[in-house]
Amino acid sequence: MSDVLATCAAAQSASPTLARTSTSQRNAVLAEMAERIDGAHDAILAANAEDLDAGAAAGLSTAMQDRLRLDSTRLADITAGLHALVDAPDPIGRVSRGFTLPNGLDVRQVTVPLGVIAMVYEGRPNVTVDAAGLAMKSGNACVLRGSSSAINSNTALARLLREALTARQLPADCVCLIADTSRDSVKQLGRARGLVDLLIPRGGAGLIQAVISDSQVPVIETGVGNCHVYVDRAADLPMAARIVTNAKTHRPSVCNAAETLLVHREVADSFLPLIAQRLRDAGVALRGDEATRARIDAEPASSEDWDTEYLDLVLAVAVVDDLDAALAHIDRHGTHHTEAIVTSDRTAARRFVAGVDAAAVMVNASTRFTDGGEFGFGAEIGISTQKLHARGPMGLAELTTTKYVVEGDGQVRV
Amino acid sequence: MSDVLATCAAAQSASPTLARTSTSQRNAVLAEMAERIDGAHDAILAANAEDLDAGAAAGLSTAMQDRLRLDSTRLADITAGLHALVDAPDPIGRVSRGFTLPNGLDVRQVTVPLGVIAMVYEGRPNVTVDAAGLAMKSGNACVLRGSSSAINSNTALARLLREALTARQLPADCVCLIADTSRDSVKQLGRARGLVDLLIPRGGAGLIQAVISDSQVPVIETGVGNCHVYVDRAADLPMAARIVTNAKTHRPSVCNAAETLLVHREVADSFLPLIAQRLRDAGVALRGDEATRARIDAEPASSEDWDTEYLDLVLAVAVVDDLDAALAHIDRHGTHHTEAIVTSDRTAARRFVAGVDAAAVMVNASTRFTDGGEFGFGAEIGISTQKLHARGPMGLAELTTTKYVVEGDGQVRV
Repeated sequence: MSDVLATCAAAQSASPTLARTSTSQRNAVLAEMAERIDGAHDAILAANAEDLDAGAAAGLSTAMQDRLRLDSTRLADITAGLHALVDAPDPIGRVSRGFTLPNGLDVRQVTVPLGVIAMVYEGRPNVTVDAAGLAMKSGNACVLRGSSSAINSNTALARLLREALTARQLPADCVCLIADTSRDSVKQLGRARGLVDLLIPRGGAGLIQAVISDSQVPVIETGVGNCHVYVDRAADLPMAARIVTNAKTHRPSVCNAAETLLVHREVADSFLPLIAQRLRDAGVALRGDEATRARIDAEPASSEDWDTEYLDLVLAVAVVDDLDAALAHIDRHGTHHTEAIVTSDRTAARRFVAGVDAAAVMVNASTRFTDGGEFGFGAEIGISTQKLHARGPMGLAELTTTKYVVEGDGQVRV
Repeated sequence: MSDVLATCAAAQSASPTLARTSTSQRNAVLAEMAERIDGAHDAILAANAEDLDAGAAAGLSTAMQDRLRLDSTRLADITAGLHALVDAPDPIGRVSRGFTLPNGLDVRQVTVPLGVIAMVYEGRPNVTVDAAGLAMKSGNACVLRGSSSAINSNTALARLLREALTARQLPADCVCLIADTSRDSVKQLGRARGLVDLLIPRGGAGLIQAVISDSQVPVIETGVGNCHVYVDRAADLPMAARIVTNAKTHRPSVCNAAETLLVHREVADSFLPLIAQRLRDAGVALRGDEATRARIDAEPASSEDWDTEYLDLVLAVAVVDDLDAALAHIDRHGTHHTEAIVTSDRTAARRFVAGVDAAAVMVNASTRFTDGGEFGFGAEIGISTQKLHARGPMGLAELTTTKYVVEGDGQVRV
């Protein structure tokens, strides 16, 4: 058995003990984790400095170095996240359905932990603690595979998390970090059938595709968002300008940022100059189709632009003949994440909502609202763009499964 | 593009039209399907006779020939199933969560169809209609891949289903039958990423394993049930005998039948002779461990017996030291389907319910109750033994996903 599979097996052995803990036991571990991180800033920052030095030597970009960097403020944010989980309602033990059958059997469908959750992620070391905290709150053991650039930070953090488990009389293997940061370790996680109940890749499209195409364990896809804002013929244009600007520029590097603007032909003459000015002021580069470039200055959009998640201050712009053309464009190029319409026309809004196949559809609101925090779900493990099990922002509830409990007095089938 | 992928692509093209239909449109198609089957008994039975002749010539077992056989009664059962679906509540368009955010955004999580469901199944041609009916009711296009032994029956039935769609102004490709019944066609279905939203294998462990190990599309595992009944020290022994006999003999060929009996050492002397007599009278062959064979006549159980789903009048029997030993045995050999305890001890019942990792746990009831029909879910597409998306009996609700609809008045993130 490889090291990766041995680690998964260790997590699996620990998981039944964890699954049987009470809410207060799990909350005590979360508080203990926070306390140990609070008391070990020096050691964590020293490990982080090693990662930063190695990154600088390897020519890591300034942006990537910033993602990697920990400081006292960021560590305080991390432990605040753990304390927020202590305060969150327990997702385990909820009765999701319950009924009594005609023969007197009492049936309850109760939420239970999944078992072992594996997560593959890039860059930021805070994910190590966030993911372990979400898994702990939901009674799941976890196997964490971070990036090589953060290995020293992740190792230091995981050691503290495991010490907290031991201090609270739980198996340290409830939280396992995989030391092997090669591509092969990701492949092996995908082969851990029977040892891993759910594998969540968090990162770029390349990582996600690699995990899915090779995994024999259940995977939830997260994160790729080629999101559109469609400005309808009946849009309130100043509102549309605010929404488009917010969706593009509020935080361009995230999956719920807008990447393409679609404008109804009848309002293109009035809306395009207005939005072009606003976006240019905000530093956004525009790539337009011919009809757009006939009205405003923009680089010509190539066919790839419609499929590109820029994650940057770049926006593709197309003029469409009508709502159906907008829906057809989104069908062809969308990634089923978030799509928005700006319109005052009820019928158009209803047709757009019904016609778009996405985790979230916004009517007269920014795409940026597809977010576990904004939806009030608390900590978020990612935004699922698949249809099975979880779709859209995933919180603690999505890290559970169910069990039917059937109680009788000797009933048999007749 | 292969024929299989082309078929999946055709279903995918049809699916948005189907997803936008109303409840009454889908019900009208279901009624039309029933009517066309009712009016074509001769043609269906002629096609079925071809399958039966070919099966007899190929040496198909009598049991398999019986599974394959259609007659007027079975066809009437099939159309009764379609009419029951017409009467069932629509699983689409239900608001599963809904709330208003502090900023005034109205958020609703609404059930929507998955898109395209593919199903691989063996033997019985009624599954062609059952599966197409469930998919239609839940607004999903379907791709059906039945066995070669039923290809003529399935082709005749699928033709009628597609004619019903056309008659009701919907694309015939909402229901697609794959003519290629080779192993390779199953493999290709598993590669139809982006074309198939869910693949459900229904059949033996070999088929299910083949689908899972090679699939890049989401799969739901169904059906393998190595179910245990544990007779506790505090069991009402006559009740235990009724439950064990029912769980084993009521319908031995199905996944919720019991395969292993575990008896607490303290009641082994009194219970084993009692149950052995009852089971022998019902024609059940027993395979026991040493402690069992010291008390009753039974063939010796080999180590494979504990992992065998007999699907036949055979029962493995072991004596266990206590509840923990029973849980450990189930942990090692169970398939996460259904596990039962017979006990009058509240603490033992609670510990068993908490300790068993299965889709369903029975307390003082037969394992045979894990069933969509028994639970009142109406038509059942299978019993999921996995943890993601659906666990236990799957009805129409499990063939849906959700979409967040967010409505505002121009809200942006600040």
